[in-house]
Amino acid sequence: MNDATAFAPASVGNIGVGFDILGHTIAGPGDRVRARRIDGQEVRIAAIRGNATKLPMDAALNTAGAALIALRDALQLPFGFEIEIDKGIPFGSGMGGSAASAVAALVAANALLDTPLTRAALYPFAMTGEAVASGGRHGDNVGAMLLGGIVLSTADRLVRIAAPDAWHCILVHPEAVVETRHAREALKGAYALGDFVAQSANLALVLCGCHNGDADLVRAGLRDVLVEPRRAALIPGFAQVKQAALDRGSLGASISGAGPSVFAWFDSQAAADAAAAPMRSAFADAGIASESFVSPLNGPAAELVR
Amino acid sequence: MNDATAFAPASVGNIGVGFDILGHTIAGPGDRVRARRIDGQEVRIAAIRGNATKLPMDAALNTAGAALIALRDALQLPFGFEIEIDKGIPFGSGMGGSAASAVAALVAANALLDTPLTRAALYPFAMTGEAVASGGRHGDNVGAMLLGGIVLSTADRLVRIAAPDAWHCILVHPEAVVETRHAREALKGAYALGDFVAQSANLALVLCGCHNGDADLVRAGLRDVLVEPRRAALIPGFAQVKQAALDRGSLGASISGAGPSVFAWFDSQAAADAAAAPMRSAFADAGIASESFVSPLNGPAAELVR
Repeated sequence: MNDATAFAPASVGNIGVGFDILGHTIAGPGDRVRARRIDGQEVRIAAIRGNATKLPMDAALNTAGAALIALRDALQLPFGFEIEIDKGIPFGSGMGGSAASAVAALVAANALLDTPLTRAALYPFAMTGEAVASGGRHGDNVGAMLLGGIVLSTADRLVRIAAPDAWHCILVHPEAVVETRHAREALKGAYALGDFVAQSANLALVLCGCHNGDADLVRAGLRDVLVEPRRAALIPGFAQVKQAALDRGSLGASISGAGPSVFAWFDSQAAADAAAAPMRSAFADAGIASESFVSPLNGPAAELVR
Repeated sequence: MNDATAFAPASVGNIGVGFDILGHTIAGPGDRVRARRIDGQEVRIAAIRGNATKLPMDAALNTAGAALIALRDALQLPFGFEIEIDKGIPFGSGMGGSAASAVAALVAANALLDTPLTRAALYPFAMTGEAVASGGRHGDNVGAMLLGGIVLSTADRLVRIAAPDAWHCILVHPEAVVETRHAREALKGAYALGDFVAQSANLALVLCGCHNGDADLVRAGLRDVLVEPRRAALIPGFAQVKQAALDRGSLGASISGAGPSVFAWFDSQAAADAAAAPMRSAFADAGIASESFVSPLNGPAAELVR
């Protein structure tokens, strides 16, 4: 095969209580990358289309390009890649757009290898790719996209977390931008051990709740006491949008990735669907238009599309 | 019933990666408390025997007494309790002795109530009791003793974590004392977000490893990067004792509770048994005698003994 195209879905990074390590995919929006094997060892970007005209065409500065350079270097490939990127995920939305381009590029390029790698083996290259945009090496978005569903993504390991099929997420994306590096600056400074203990307890409750299919445990734990308080002010209307979800019976709601998108978990698709109007209305009250997506928590993995 | 006796087992607090929230019981050593209903509303301690002659006889200052006072006050009981405490757990050992007296007292007294409470309902009183000794409200030891096995103990909730029955722990108790308040002083100061992220990832790996019965996940995660580095210097020989466990194939080893006891997890009883001699030898090299206990991770809960 000399030409392959892959699609990587959007994702919710952090999931509130799993900063930098927990994420899940969202069915619907995503990025698409077409890759061709080319002579020589260059990695080059032929085109970027769609939701992100500002993205760098220099492969080393682009998450998709940097991921393929890392793959090429690690495997000492005797050939290169030319890619075309179709951005379906808005820039700076907190929906994992930087990650999706890297993962889609890797899944497409992997299909062109003489001996394709496992998804887990692609993970370090995906982190390297995303790092050129975020400035930090963290796998919560790329890990979820590589395996699908809810994924624990540590420095060197991916673990799928099962959740009941009925559980759904609504992701509300306001027409505003929070750049990842600004969101990271908000986190500078020291932290108290007590806050970490509280957040650890919440993370553990969410993990046990998913494993056990126990919505009450998730409801008790899905509360970000560490990061959300420092970032909430970057998102106009955040408190009201979150409250709108909680008022509708959400298991918990917080900032998706670095924001400004807001996610909320529900124990049924109907409940998630019903939260769309009030959550979007709360953003509208803050003067911001928005769109929303409802997805199973057990969302799709990245995949080849032809 | 007017007279009841209960036994509460020792426990491993923190389990390295779950500071203040994760613990498991140890079969074998423990505290025993006999309780009698008495007229009037006094809670009084008639005797303390065994491993801890230094403990206060003033009920309000003793973990067992304080737990029963909390129970009496919350339920507005029209009677009081007289208790006798047999300490099987050495003072300041990191084996949950303060917690065990509180839990044994509550389990015994609960049997004397006209309408006994659930174990979960006893949890807040057990935390209140232990707090008079440790100075902090944390449930990792009392929670494990109330339910048995590995338990996630949050501010208001207990969740049992299943582990494979074959998995065992060795607890090595050196003849040395670390007072909980000194161990807590070592933790003062600020923490970096990056250390929290690493520790959170480790906690999540251990939880997923237990849930999935996957020893490799536990082996990857059972590494305390947050607390152990600040406390290890309080325990002579700690690094060598830990290394002795790792050299014997341990899934991970760290400080039990506030120390100085050291625990190590293994995927079989035979492996845990085999680690006893080298771990105790490492303490001996530091000039410290020690004793050791091997227990399933799915250890016992506190129980009535007559």
